[in-house]
Amino acid sequence: MSEAAPLGDRARDYFLGLQDRICAAVEALDGAGKFHEDAWKRPGGGGGRTRVMAGGALFEKAGIGFSDVHGELRPEMARALPGEGVAFRAAGVSLIFHPRSPRVPTVHANVRHIQRGGHSWFGGGTDLTPHYVVPADATHFHRTLRAACDRHDRGFYPRFKRWCDEYFFLPHRNEPRGVGGIFFDYLGAGAEATAGQPPPEASSPREGDPEALFAFLRAVGDAVLEAYLPIVERRRHDAWGERERNWQLLRRGRYVEFNLLYDRGTVFGLRTDGRVESILMSMPPEVRWAYAHAPEPGSAEAESLAAICARRDWASD
Amino acid sequence: MSEAAPLGDRARDYFLGLQDRICAAVEALDGAGKFHEDAWKRPGGGGGRTRVMAGGALFEKAGIGFSDVHGELRPEMARALPGEGVAFRAAGVSLIFHPRSPRVPTVHANVRHIQRGGHSWFGGGTDLTPHYVVPADATHFHRTLRAACDRHDRGFYPRFKRWCDEYFFLPHRNEPRGVGGIFFDYLGAGAEATAGQPPPEASSPREGDPEALFAFLRAVGDAVLEAYLPIVERRRHDAWGERERNWQLLRRGRYVEFNLLYDRGTVFGLRTDGRVESILMSMPPEVRWAYAHAPEPGSAEAESLAAICARRDWASD
Repeated sequence: MSEAAPLGDRARDYFLGLQDRICAAVEALDGAGKFHEDAWKRPGGGGGRTRVMAGGALFEKAGIGFSDVHGELRPEMARALPGEGVAFRAAGVSLIFHPRSPRVPTVHANVRHIQRGGHSWFGGGTDLTPHYVVPADATHFHRTLRAACDRHDRGFYPRFKRWCDEYFFLPHRNEPRGVGGIFFDYLGAGAEATAGQPPPEASSPREGDPEALFAFLRAVGDAVLEAYLPIVERRRHDAWGERERNWQLLRRGRYVEFNLLYDRGTVFGLRTDGRVESILMSMPPEVRWAYAHAPEPGSAEAESLAAICARRDWASD
Repeated sequence: MSEAAPLGDRARDYFLGLQDRICAAVEALDGAGKFHEDAWKRPGGGGGRTRVMAGGALFEKAGIGFSDVHGELRPEMARALPGEGVAFRAAGVSLIFHPRSPRVPTVHANVRHIQRGGHSWFGGGTDLTPHYVVPADATHFHRTLRAACDRHDRGFYPRFKRWCDEYFFLPHRNEPRGVGGIFFDYLGAGAEATAGQPPPEASSPREGDPEALFAFLRAVGDAVLEAYLPIVERRRHDAWGERERNWQLLRRGRYVEFNLLYDRGTVFGLRTDGRVESILMSMPPEVRWAYAHAPEPGSAEAESLAAICARRDWASD
């Protein structure tokens, strides 16, 4: 599709290709599991293709969804989004991979393009949730994202790293969800449309150029595999047993708490008649809760939790 | 304590005794598991005792909390509750029992007394969540509750049964949580204080008499064991295997979805600085999610789900 095609259509094509590339790479890495696709249509307009791998060798459950929906915003959605009018189009790719091994981190990523009336903007990011924190892995993840950001705007990484730390946080636990990454929203929506939206910060001058922002979004989408796959390769053969599995299942409980209590996409999607199974494909396959569980002081679990709570500047040299 | 003592103190004493009686009965029934108590104080005033049995023979996780807290309402709480002023006292008992066997239903119950300014009211109820619906069990549960209600006000059971069906419902799944029971709130708060609160129905003339309502609340609390224990006795030796366990864990996922997305006590408690572990003691010990899982047509699982979705009038003769 030529550069002259509308941005929304070029974004859709990028998202379709990204989903294909990630699925191919993850199937190759897993070696045994295959993604199964559910193609669906939205009654109000548009549709998507949800792909889930269940019971892979490496991945206990991996979900990656593409969607491109349009129509009229429901009132609660219209109130919550920047811009005006009820006509909208939203396209993107969203993924959450739950590895079987407690030594391999869970990863989440999302890239999206939203259009409403005369406004359009990009949002997304990716964040890593290790159950056992290996500092070199967190550093690799963050440096990969910093490099991708820096090629577009040197202000992006520090700003979006902080935004990620603020967003993926469980206030009732006073705990971050993991070691973070980057998160951004309303990129390119313009200052007047985003008044009152987080974060209350000066936006970059590049934000007036939709083509530059689309290039940045592609850089983020393309960086996901580069940031995550080497960590999977490094950790996939690390030993674990019942103790590590129990810790993983308890930490997955926190993931569920975040997604159902705070994640805007999940809560909003479920309250506004989104496709339930596509929204909840993010849920871990198996989870535990134990009353007042706390890791033994000095244990690997306690150290990992402390490293997560410290919200370090993982990319720093 | 004599009848002349303040109602709030007599309610507290009833709740303490109810917690003791239920714990003793459940330990006797389980035969192996014991409740462990966490006594806690609330920085703003009052405290509680949270009791949890983990890894019992019959009960995989059973949590029952008593609390009696007072102080000043936070603004979001003040807006959400009937009455005026910021001084409050809230006391009650809340329980959720998760049996190990998929053949034994999960039960939830709560009885509470709230005071705010010049208003005070009662709330509570109990509801049953079988994974495999046995109609005779659901009928026993509902008839026990109907009998307890009828001794106080013949309008209560139909009204509170309907309220329960409406409350314990997952709109995103279009599924009730289980076979229901009774649910009520703001009982005795007075019409002017509850304007705009659900349900928009005529209240009973008995609602002007706090002593009559306290007697009703005690009848509900006392009925919990009578409604639930015979079902446990009937089902505890029923056979089950990996298939039934898997269905139980998937259905527990719905329980988690309800509690974190919709349950007012849970969501409100977590957002207003409640004691996290006491609120989340309700979470099942082990849970599964599978993408787009649907029971095989004609299977016992499909029949159970259909029986739940039908929201039958279980008590009818």
